[in-house]
Amino acid sequence: MSLMLSVGARVRKSPFFAATRKAGLTAASVYNHMFMPTSYGDPAAEYDRLVNGVAMWDVAVERQVALKGPDALKLARLLTPRNLDGLVIGQGKYVPICNYDGVIINDPVLLQVDEDEIWLSIADSDIVLWAAAIAGAHRLDVRVFEPDVSPLAIQGPKSTDVVADLFGDWVRELKYFGFLITELAGIPLVVARSGWSKQGGFELYLRDGQRGQELWDLVAKAGAPYGIGPGTPNYVERLESGLISYGADTDAETNPFELGMDNFINLDQPHEFIGKSALKAIKAAGVKRRFIGLLIDGAPFKGGNEHRWDVTLNGAYAGFASACAYSPRVGSNIGVGLISTAAIAAPDGVAVITDDGILPARAAPFPLV
Amino acid sequence: MSLMLSVGARVRKSPFFAATRKAGLTAASVYNHMFMPTSYGDPAAEYDRLVNGVAMWDVAVERQVALKGPDALKLARLLTPRNLDGLVIGQGKYVPICNYDGVIINDPVLLQVDEDEIWLSIADSDIVLWAAAIAGAHRLDVRVFEPDVSPLAIQGPKSTDVVADLFGDWVRELKYFGFLITELAGIPLVVARSGWSKQGGFELYLRDGQRGQELWDLVAKAGAPYGIGPGTPNYVERLESGLISYGADTDAETNPFELGMDNFINLDQPHEFIGKSALKAIKAAGVKRRFIGLLIDGAPFKGGNEHRWDVTLNGAYAGFASACAYSPRVGSNIGVGLISTAAIAAPDGVAVITDDGILPARAAPFPLV
Repeated sequence: MSLMLSVGARVRKSPFFAATRKAGLTAASVYNHMFMPTSYGDPAAEYDRLVNGVAMWDVAVERQVALKGPDALKLARLLTPRNLDGLVIGQGKYVPICNYDGVIINDPVLLQVDEDEIWLSIADSDIVLWAAAIAGAHRLDVRVFEPDVSPLAIQGPKSTDVVADLFGDWVRELKYFGFLITELAGIPLVVARSGWSKQGGFELYLRDGQRGQELWDLVAKAGAPYGIGPGTPNYVERLESGLISYGADTDAETNPFELGMDNFINLDQPHEFIGKSALKAIKAAGVKRRFIGLLIDGAPFKGGNEHRWDVTLNGAYAGFASACAYSPRVGSNIGVGLISTAAIAAPDGVAVITDDGILPARAAPFPLV
Repeated sequence: MSLMLSVGARVRKSPFFAATRKAGLTAASVYNHMFMPTSYGDPAAEYDRLVNGVAMWDVAVERQVALKGPDALKLARLLTPRNLDGLVIGQGKYVPICNYDGVIINDPVLLQVDEDEIWLSIADSDIVLWAAAIAGAHRLDVRVFEPDVSPLAIQGPKSTDVVADLFGDWVRELKYFGFLITELAGIPLVVARSGWSKQGGFELYLRDGQRGQELWDLVAKAGAPYGIGPGTPNYVERLESGLISYGADTDAETNPFELGMDNFINLDQPHEFIGKSALKAIKAAGVKRRFIGLLIDGAPFKGGNEHRWDVTLNGAYAGFASACAYSPRVGSNIGVGLISTAAIAAPDGVAVITDDGILPARAAPFPLV
């Protein structure tokens, strides 16, 4: 039984919202207090465009939290366990953010966009409040706010050609999370090599909310020779690739080591950051569960799960599967979840308690495809 | 063109979610990372039940932020400009929360539920992050977390009879925001006289998320003789009554004086709180706009507005109407918004730039009915 989405003023509209509706948007959710497109009604075609061609996604919900002022870097260092030494304008970094207990509260990409300005390109939690509270309590000389910035993603193997046609061949040389502040037909934006897929791609950070339709149309036109079409952060591909969805895959106790973020947590750096002592204790104790893929038996799932499914080992609770779907490329039902290390290592696998019955499954490392 | 709401694990389900779907829920939104019911498909009947009878609402999205520990009150005092002297277990208080700039970031009801435990029953922003950051930065001895608590509202003129039948006649003596920690058929809960309407009512704060269906059924059964039926926070009644919807009616600059919250802002109290100096400056400068009602000409609106409509005075921007609808009781289109003091005082009224044309309007004090 499906539900309609109520549309009112409390939930914000992306600068691309009208364009997405014209392009045939059929379903949406809410993310960072903004409508987030989730389907144009043809999941198979959207998956195919992403995996074999090129797709354009309204991901304006990936809001920016700007830290601006003399203490911007000082605040950024407090906010993340990742060592920010060597940060430069033009190269982003993935920076987990933890609370004082070492629990992850967001996993943004950080972009230094000016000498005194840093952006956090956030997942679905109010980091603008967290960062402003830390800045205020520490009396830092920095302003924390949400700027008028809205990313439009271009994803898929043909995305580089589209973006090169728009901006020039220099984009082919951009490193992952590398970016350039530039413009397109006078529209101010940031071009970054990034995006929430493993199919390659770019994000255009629109810097003028009045020009969403204009940017959308320019990308659609440039992409037409490559068969570009609308899409959304892809439910199936992200499972195959093992991309983390904050809030879906995490709970109120999840720490970054459970998520395999060890490379982004620098406990021995000289700089202080929030959660340092808690994370040291967590690391010393060792993790009891990990974010992992699942191969799940049974007839192909028709869609995704509406809520977390319990995972059991020999009948006892062993974690949860946060998102599951049939993968055409794997040729099996797959899923992702936070599962006990014992269950991951179990030679006879685990069981997933779906809404339609209990299915045998086994843990599998990413990527699943 | 309507949109479907995607249902997945990232957005949480209320303990009453299954019950609301069985009761015929047709539309929802997302609030505090949880699905929020918005319609059962018959707005006129839902309005009538609220205004003339009794309705039950799943308002579990009104999440609680618990402050627990020896410094709970100390933290609460830091968080709100309202003086908390005289706070007692059993009597809630409406407590605006502001950031360091004096901008409102939530407007919860505060309930002290134990000697060392305070709940903030919040609107749609992650106060759990704000409060945890303040507590951590100030090294307070208090834990900040979201407890397993989910309010179910019973609203309307006949709500007192329903709640008295369930709990006893003592509920008739509860003051506004007064509450008692108790149980119903062994289900742990808090009974409070509160709710987001001006039709009278109660909220049952369910304290065991496994027992949502059970509580829903008990209330439905007790309410049957009074004609109870499902409903949601009511779009039209809240406009008539002038209830603030945080996020819809507020923007990134809104201060509590603009919202008429002067009685809840105690700038001269001896206690320190966040935003004190900013709020003193704002008060001294005087407000330039206010939250106010609107009576709007033209044919009855069919539904609500999808986004804010500009309000103009003599052709110049003078604020926005955040929510508008036809009110059967007023016999006119009405709205609420943040509008310049000049526009409010204008003898010839203002204009509202609707999606279907420009309509004459005039400001009007609450309640509009």
